[in-house]
Amino acid sequence: MFRSAESVEKLINVLARLPGIGRKSAARLAFHILKVPKEEALELAEAIQDVKEKVGFCSICFNISEEDPCYICTDPSRKHDVICIVEEASDLAALEKAEGYNGLYHILSGRISPLDGIGPDDLKIKELLGRIGEDTKEIILATNPDVEGEATALYLAKLIKPMGVRTTRIARGLPVGSDLEYADGVTISRALEGRQEI
Amino acid sequence: MFRSAESVEKLINVLARLPGIGRKSAARLAFHILKVPKEEALELAEAIQDVKEKVGFCSICFNISEEDPCYICTDPSRKHDVICIVEEASDLAALEKAEGYNGLYHILSGRISPLDGIGPDDLKIKELLGRIGEDTKEIILATNPDVEGEATALYLAKLIKPMGVRTTRIARGLPVGSDLEYADGVTISRALEGRQEI
Repeated sequence: MFRSAESVEKLINVLARLPGIGRKSAARLAFHILKVPKEEALELAEAIQDVKEKVGFCSICFNISEEDPCYICTDPSRKHDVICIVEEASDLAALEKAEGYNGLYHILSGRISPLDGIGPDDLKIKELLGRIGEDTKEIILATNPDVEGEATALYLAKLIKPMGVRTTRIARGLPVGSDLEYADGVTISRALEGRQEI
Repeated sequence: MFRSAESVEKLINVLARLPGIGRKSAARLAFHILKVPKEEALELAEAIQDVKEKVGFCSICFNISEEDPCYICTDPSRKHDVICIVEEASDLAALEKAEGYNGLYHILSGRISPLDGIGPDDLKIKELLGRIGEDTKEIILATNPDVEGEATALYLAKLIKPMGVRTTRIARGLPVGSDLEYADGVTISRALEGRQEI
């Protein structure tokens, strides 16, 4: 039976727990880490430690941040009366990179997913409702356009609308640069439903 | 402009240097590391540090090992008169997992690749020739069946054969479970050339 050095096996096991990395990729990464100069490998170890020590969550929007509140919540040039709700901090990063939005965010830290045992109480919904005040003009629901994301958006809309705040959902339709011929049926239906005057 | 926490950016940059991991995957991994409990993330950091501290190379076959010589070179139940030459320690792992070989190994630590500036002197060839003695019965060339691997095998065969040692090359042909219809032409040609009586 093949046995690798114990510490190598351990590294492979830990790497294989990362998302999208199976045992084969984990082994490849482990062998790469073995090959590179010691400083380069330790830089990765330190970056991981650093991130866990320095980075926390913004107590207002739950964005990942080294400061609290985060730089978005404290930015006076942003619109503080619009809140965009996303599932994860990585979604916030995607929206910010698109540079089309200038309001605040609220990160739910997940989405309602009964199959995974995640209910509304596991998300930052209470904190969201606490943020919505008289001066809040709009809540944009930017959860993912999949089954769980849609369900979460609907659930939130039912809670927020009665508070008298304008509640919107990001548009679902054909991605820019795509080809109608290869689009799936649900996306085409959504694109038709969401059609607008030009 | 979007800016993430500095330590997160740093982690993404370091992760993106790993093989097969682009910036998007690196960001996904970084956000995952941010989400998991601190102990789980630190376990990864420690596994990396551990591997770089404990693991070295076997001074005989250059396998990665926590001991020197490695457990393969010191195993009395293995045939010490057959040496299988591979490019990397990960190739040794693949051969050992197949469980069809019971001899020793020699890891070249690369292959001859002039385009990457890697010549014979950069590999553990001198050390290999030093290992071949009067009692060596066979050298199996198990470098990869691609251009550089074949060139390296040919180069080694020219050095080893004059020493009077039987030198063999692993068979190239159709992989087990594959379909002739979808095999590439070079592989089919090799499979025909290497045909055997049944």
